[in-house]
Amino acid sequence: MNKKNLINQIKQKKSFLCIGLDTDINKIPKHLLSLSDPIFEFNKQIIDSTMDLCVAYKLNTAFYESNGIEGWKSLEKTVEYIPKDIFSIADAKRGDIGNTSRMYAKTFFDNMDFDSVTVNPYMGIDSVEPFLDFRNKWVILLALTSNIGSEDFQNISNRNDVKLYQQVLHKSLNWADDSKMMYVVGATKADSLKEIRKIIPNHFILVPGVGAQGGSLSEVAINGLNEDYGLLINSSRSIIYAGNDESFAKNAREAALKIKLEMEKYIN
Amino acid sequence: MNKKNLINQIKQKKSFLCIGLDTDINKIPKHLLSLSDPIFEFNKQIIDSTMDLCVAYKLNTAFYESNGIEGWKSLEKTVEYIPKDIFSIADAKRGDIGNTSRMYAKTFFDNMDFDSVTVNPYMGIDSVEPFLDFRNKWVILLALTSNIGSEDFQNISNRNDVKLYQQVLHKSLNWADDSKMMYVVGATKADSLKEIRKIIPNHFILVPGVGAQGGSLSEVAINGLNEDYGLLINSSRSIIYAGNDESFAKNAREAALKIKLEMEKYIN
Repeated sequence: MNKKNLINQIKQKKSFLCIGLDTDINKIPKHLLSLSDPIFEFNKQIIDSTMDLCVAYKLNTAFYESNGIEGWKSLEKTVEYIPKDIFSIADAKRGDIGNTSRMYAKTFFDNMDFDSVTVNPYMGIDSVEPFLDFRNKWVILLALTSNIGSEDFQNISNRNDVKLYQQVLHKSLNWADDSKMMYVVGATKADSLKEIRKIIPNHFILVPGVGAQGGSLSEVAINGLNEDYGLLINSSRSIIYAGNDESFAKNAREAALKIKLEMEKYIN
Repeated sequence: MNKKNLINQIKQKKSFLCIGLDTDINKIPKHLLSLSDPIFEFNKQIIDSTMDLCVAYKLNTAFYESNGIEGWKSLEKTVEYIPKDIFSIADAKRGDIGNTSRMYAKTFFDNMDFDSVTVNPYMGIDSVEPFLDFRNKWVILLALTSNIGSEDFQNISNRNDVKLYQQVLHKSLNWADDSKMMYVVGATKADSLKEIRKIIPNHFILVPGVGAQGGSLSEVAINGLNEDYGLLINSSRSIIYAGNDESFAKNAREAALKIKLEMEKYIN
């Protein structure tokens, strides 16, 4: 998907919601467990009931890998099921030396048809570049994450008082422009978004951490939106586990709608 | 596997060689391609012909994931086939927020029986801790990697002139001791090993990059060995692709033996 199509989708749906399909076999409604692929069936029903409310789905690969071969099948089927006009994210946080990153890029962009993959910047340019070689595919580079451990290294300042995550932003601007690169900034770091927008005024930012992790939608929207909208705000658990019985998809829709209606205010 | 068993193995075999099973369907001998699982068959023959020469096998997960479900099957079969007295490494470079890292830990330590997994430090403590909750399992944390991009961020100094990878070493010493944690230091950074040994005198270090990537075994050994040996030197391509016909396993053995004989000098 290219940037123009993503922006148009946000405009039409009046939503910049990304729904995280962190689908855990231990948390999905019990009545699905007798089906041949409960994880896929859960995802299918969530997608069917929310696809007019969101512009992206994010699949956290860990949840699928942890089910082994069956999980990998669910992952492949789910990304295939996501409508092509909705942005898909492999939240895989990969990154390795060049010839290895090329294999990961092949996995998520060639074998599966994800629009984007999250990449860890620690290993630098040649760990990221192989993901940039695919037309209309995106790298979503980790900058400032939502978790407690983000304090450990991402906030360390160099001699010129530039923090590590800021250096990641500055340096990676030379690797790709805003037509191929996005960044992860956690919703719990909404106060940093204003200053981050000065470094990357035009890029899309994927913001996880609204909902179960405690981030505030309004703070993120106020500090993060740009002329192209420029935000994908992800919510996972608070939407997909809003219900836990046969009404789960309806409950997920209600939870997603509530967020989408809040987002509308910032679109108009 | 615990540290004592690993040290004993090195002593007995007079080797600290780790063989990297970066098995690429496009590079293995053609005669294997008609078999039902060519990747596993290749690995099996490499393991059979080298297991007395090495103390560890490292499986680069990207090469398996890039073959989809079939690749995941080959990965599972290979780790199951590795003799239990040889240290196994899932070179997966994972790392995510706590509940996600827990899923990755389950994948590699519970579902599969790897002894260790490589973990990226960028997201800090809670991205690493879930991997530390397993008895006799190891985290191998990225410190200073062998690739060009390692210059981008790992070598950035803070105000006190401490480089990022050194901060990773210092800080993570509080997360786990040398019975559960190892570090990755690339062979192309052998000159840094002496100074790294001052920070982590007792830890094992996994050193990739000898062979195809140009690192020198003797430099690594001289600067990196400690009283427990403390090194696992990995070689992948230069061993497993030493031959490309029906003699490939024999050729791999010859390549591994050559390195092992060089290592013997440093064991005695």
